[in-house]
Amino acid sequence: MPLAERVATFDNDGTLCCEQPLQTQFFFAFGRVKELSAKDPTMIERQPFRAVLEDDYNTLFGLGKQALFELAFATHAGITEEGFEEIARRWLATARHPKFGRLFKECTYRPQVELLTYLRENGFKTYIVSAGGVDFMRAFSDEAYGVPREQVIGSSVKLRYDMKDDRVSLTKLPELNSFDDREVKALNIGLHIGRRPLLAFGNSDGDLAMMRYAKSGLGPRLALLLHHDDAEREAAYDREFRLSPLSEALDKAGDYGITVVSMKRDWKGVF
Amino acid sequence: MPLAERVATFDNDGTLCCEQPLQTQFFFAFGRVKELSAKDPTMIERQPFRAVLEDDYNTLFGLGKQALFELAFATHAGITEEGFEEIARRWLATARHPKFGRLFKECTYRPQVELLTYLRENGFKTYIVSAGGVDFMRAFSDEAYGVPREQVIGSSVKLRYDMKDDRVSLTKLPELNSFDDREVKALNIGLHIGRRPLLAFGNSDGDLAMMRYAKSGLGPRLALLLHHDDAEREAAYDREFRLSPLSEALDKAGDYGITVVSMKRDWKGVF
Repeated sequence: MPLAERVATFDNDGTLCCEQPLQTQFFFAFGRVKELSAKDPTMIERQPFRAVLEDDYNTLFGLGKQALFELAFATHAGITEEGFEEIARRWLATARHPKFGRLFKECTYRPQVELLTYLRENGFKTYIVSAGGVDFMRAFSDEAYGVPREQVIGSSVKLRYDMKDDRVSLTKLPELNSFDDREVKALNIGLHIGRRPLLAFGNSDGDLAMMRYAKSGLGPRLALLLHHDDAEREAAYDREFRLSPLSEALDKAGDYGITVVSMKRDWKGVF
Repeated sequence: MPLAERVATFDNDGTLCCEQPLQTQFFFAFGRVKELSAKDPTMIERQPFRAVLEDDYNTLFGLGKQALFELAFATHAGITEEGFEEIARRWLATARHPKFGRLFKECTYRPQVELLTYLRENGFKTYIVSAGGVDFMRAFSDEAYGVPREQVIGSSVKLRYDMKDDRVSLTKLPELNSFDDREVKALNIGLHIGRRPLLAFGNSDGDLAMMRYAKSGLGPRLALLLHHDDAEREAAYDREFRLSPLSEALDKAGDYGITVVSMKRDWKGVF
């Protein structure tokens, strides 16, 4: 394939790094709620913050999608992009995974980092296309995966152009711009990249549209699906993970020409 | 500056290529209206198509912004991204500038192409950030400027994910997604690139927000404004060009730390 066409897109949570028991960004958001509530004691009176402050995740995830967006906006918006970056980097420098004990930003999968490197060595541009927040992922994508900020596509809030003392900044607003999941992943690839990927790698039904978009282009194509079937080394889950279930993509992988990668069978190491 | 930070953003029309008497994309749209009207004879009964079919540009540009969007949607939407690409490439292969006689895609400024090359040779990623339609610019950006499709940010319509015979395509809808002008240029840089450019180059007030965003970052920065003051070799215009006037950026360039480039004085050659 011509060099210019060599584009590969990877989901992040569960594809490049551990998303159990929750996606890393939730831990970050919970930490932010705890920080913010120290300055605003009324937060504990309101959901979804009360559930977070009481570590009551069952209630939290029962509150529905809107509550999760409120959580994201309260913890990710109202600050400049550059201010957010600093907060996220500070958190990532010390926050550790509750089960594995290592830094969250080091809970990345070694075979995937090797694959990203291999693709780049063969002229590919590697992109992240994830439902995770774009600014949060940009705070570690280069260090963790060698993927530069400008090759990260994610969920985003609207931005506001501010001018203060002759200095321009972009402020993150509590309003959704794009929820980068399912069909929207393909649409955002069209908008941001403008090329159909040759390779797409995902791990849930949220990645199916992107995989089918990649797979149904002309010429050789590869769609890969990571199946978490390794309770010993990481976690075993698929359709029951309510934050990001894997069901249709697993059942129909054969029909859709998607290659299933078994963590247990195919990976020599995990982290 | 660290290699990763070396990002330069360029406006397209009037900055990298000739935009007189009209931006290239208008000529493309007019050609499309003539093609489409051959299949739909009722088009001549409706504005803005009637004005186009009668070559009555004075009426056309008096119809206001909405009419221009209708023109864009009718000629750029309702087809897949890949189908549009083919139509745009076919037109660009033969369409010539009415004054200069050369192909539109060759009405690019030689000093700018040299600057883009120089920047890339020094580790910069060069981006186009323009109010022009993203898909139209992507059809020639690599050939004309060496800027790959994924480094083109422009105005865009919303896309729809379609599945037909097990093949996914993205269809361009007649609904605006982003009009990439003025402050929106800075916001889209935040969304797509996630870095503040070290260098921004424009030629109109539509580029001022992007130039000020670049210029007001920390460390060394460069904001450049091309002034079209060369009636002999190209065109002399600024505040009176109603499709894209240059007024505030020229008057305040000194205050804002913007370097004005005179086409007449500073450029040895133009095309």
